[in-house]
Amino acid sequence: MTAEIIAIGTELLLGEITNTNAQFLAQELAALGISHHFQTVVGDNMERIHQVLEQATRRSQLILCTGGLGPTPDDLTTEAIARYFQTPLVEHPEIFADIQAKYARRGLTTPENNRKQALLPQGAMVLPNPRGTAPGMIWSPRPNLTVMTFPGVPSELQAMWRETAVPYLRAHGWVTGVIVSRNLRFWGISEAALAEKVQDFFTLTNPTVAPYAGKGETRLRVTARAADEATAWALIAPVETQLRQRTGADCYGVDEDSLAKVVGQWLQRRGETLAVAESCTGGLLGAMITEVPGSSAYFQGGVVSYANAVKEKVLGVAAELLTTQGAVSAAVAQAMAVGVRERLAATWGLSITGIAGPGGGSEAKPVGLVYIGLAGADGHVATWEHRFSPERGREWIRHLSACQALDHLRRRLLDAG
Amino acid sequence: MTAEIIAIGTELLLGEITNTNAQFLAQELAALGISHHFQTVVGDNMERIHQVLEQATRRSQLILCTGGLGPTPDDLTTEAIARYFQTPLVEHPEIFADIQAKYARRGLTTPENNRKQALLPQGAMVLPNPRGTAPGMIWSPRPNLTVMTFPGVPSELQAMWRETAVPYLRAHGWVTGVIVSRNLRFWGISEAALAEKVQDFFTLTNPTVAPYAGKGETRLRVTARAADEATAWALIAPVETQLRQRTGADCYGVDEDSLAKVVGQWLQRRGETLAVAESCTGGLLGAMITEVPGSSAYFQGGVVSYANAVKEKVLGVAAELLTTQGAVSAAVAQAMAVGVRERLAATWGLSITGIAGPGGGSEAKPVGLVYIGLAGADGHVATWEHRFSPERGREWIRHLSACQALDHLRRRLLDAG
Repeated sequence: MTAEIIAIGTELLLGEITNTNAQFLAQELAALGISHHFQTVVGDNMERIHQVLEQATRRSQLILCTGGLGPTPDDLTTEAIARYFQTPLVEHPEIFADIQAKYARRGLTTPENNRKQALLPQGAMVLPNPRGTAPGMIWSPRPNLTVMTFPGVPSELQAMWRETAVPYLRAHGWVTGVIVSRNLRFWGISEAALAEKVQDFFTLTNPTVAPYAGKGETRLRVTARAADEATAWALIAPVETQLRQRTGADCYGVDEDSLAKVVGQWLQRRGETLAVAESCTGGLLGAMITEVPGSSAYFQGGVVSYANAVKEKVLGVAAELLTTQGAVSAAVAQAMAVGVRERLAATWGLSITGIAGPGGGSEAKPVGLVYIGLAGADGHVATWEHRFSPERGREWIRHLSACQALDHLRRRLLDAG
Repeated sequence: MTAEIIAIGTELLLGEITNTNAQFLAQELAALGISHHFQTVVGDNMERIHQVLEQATRRSQLILCTGGLGPTPDDLTTEAIARYFQTPLVEHPEIFADIQAKYARRGLTTPENNRKQALLPQGAMVLPNPRGTAPGMIWSPRPNLTVMTFPGVPSELQAMWRETAVPYLRAHGWVTGVIVSRNLRFWGISEAALAEKVQDFFTLTNPTVAPYAGKGETRLRVTARAADEATAWALIAPVETQLRQRTGADCYGVDEDSLAKVVGQWLQRRGETLAVAESCTGGLLGAMITEVPGSSAYFQGGVVSYANAVKEKVLGVAAELLTTQGAVSAAVAQAMAVGVRERLAATWGLSITGIAGPGGGSEAKPVGLVYIGLAGADGHVATWEHRFSPERGREWIRHLSACQALDHLRRRLLDAG
């Protein structure tokens, strides 16, 4: 039994968006142990969608289609599939009612265009969309063939896949045995350095261990295959323990953990609070911290001191420091951390000041130079200097700076125990 | 004449890498005016590569293959193509000499494995690789068919494409015109409502007009095809003007514009400054504003008043208001906007307070309820209430809240002229 992925959308052929949906589904199919040999991208064109369906239905038993479920005339996916199998479309009043309810909740009237999203081929099951208006479908137009459709919006597709499609595949015998994996997440070590440290693990066969580079971070994925989940996790556990022993504090968490989440867990455990003062990151550090639900339990808030006047007036950084050392300096990072900790009455004050570029750099203080300050309860203050590669650009430097600040606090909390 | 893209590599089927090469080539083909209707991904498997070549050579005249040119046994691309066209492979000594020179420059001996990279089908031209070891090829195995191969490493592929493939295509009559497009960006109108408003434009053929939904926003893409860029832009200009007239203030910008960038341009033009006070967005609004290079010219900074104590102490929100109205209320949004404007000495104070969830909601104040406040120079203060769908989740509500705050300020600046 083989699956294949068909992504439908002229915007993919024009290169306007990256086909991340194919990658997501590919990872998921691999994790479920469902083989898949082909991925196709085709435009919003009836005849060419039919060509692709003809190939796909000859060689695969599960067809996953993404995109083309919107309300506009160029969204053809459902109609193209129905026509290919010479099946009439029927209206599902419950879908349209659901779309109307979603619009009404936002105080809007449902445009007449959305009515086409309530049409599915006769015999198809609704694949509910908890995140958006367009539902998909699960349909077996003939024996040994299942077609699923998903909208192109990644967050909607992912929720629909996890909540409905995967349970359906399990119930219908597509998933025999299980594959589970754990991602160990690392900050402060390169992929190459990490690979060298644990390379003897890469020859294991069950579980397997493979390294991946993420956005400034590195991951090790440990994947086991077994008859049931408990057995698979039991294969992973000792390898995970060994990997953690080998890599120490560089491993900050697993799976859905983020640096902000891990720091939050430490703070909550210790009954401590945090306040931040940001310059070049402009709010990004606060945004990362508050991405974590429940962060109000330990996050007091922050000051985005973009202008020097705000550093002085709101954070109490001495004007003299700003003049003699410059806003991007270890001394100012320290004063910002101390100031925000005191004024926002938090256990910890964490600060960032730097040059994110593209302008504002000089020979002495180039783009990518960032200072991080940390003020703690015991009167102790630390600062760190980082020099991030300017060629990676403003967004990258800001992202690394915010993550790096969280990592300094994490290691400090780890040391404090 | 039609091109198509075949990406070869089992790592793509496992979802280990994103197929950014297909996106790059798609953008390039669109910009050159070469139509392309299909993209395929296939694993490192002789038989399945042949299946894909069979389809592709029946319907396209230019086949761009990426990946599978490495030195290891699973790299099959060149051999698979040669076998498909029943053509022998011949060794190109100059390729192997070049590979040896590249290794020698790094002080290394060339592994014997690399010898296979010097093999090309009889009659194929070398497509030089200035960035890595593996060259590709340009080959016409039969009339009206050209096959090009590129390695999977994006930087190598891109250099080879620009330096050799594009000049080849121009010289061989593939590039006869250009396609250019402009994206009009909208906030505050759904894709369906926008489509209804401008649906008579969707039947145009040159330029074409098509709607897309982005992250909370909507876009209209206007695409023209012509002999040269100037003519193509001249086709777009009147349609763009009509679309803007029809849609008014909902259209906030074009192409790479963001709400934050457009607001920044208005502020700079008027010589005004901005300060923000954020609760549920936790810094996200400030992060968006400072994503724009040069935002320090008009952005003073902000206060992330996550805890009520910070709202009181740093922003001067009256304790009584917090008690009687609650932190999530129009009155507190107003006080936050006024407070931050005053304390950070800015022309405008913009505030957000709301419930991003998943916890913290009640029947009276559900998850997704957000108040936005705007305080201006003239003593005028405005507040808005929004009810975002709770089912879209915390991240989505925060994103919409920050964008919506910027949009309120944008419309205010637009009215002020």
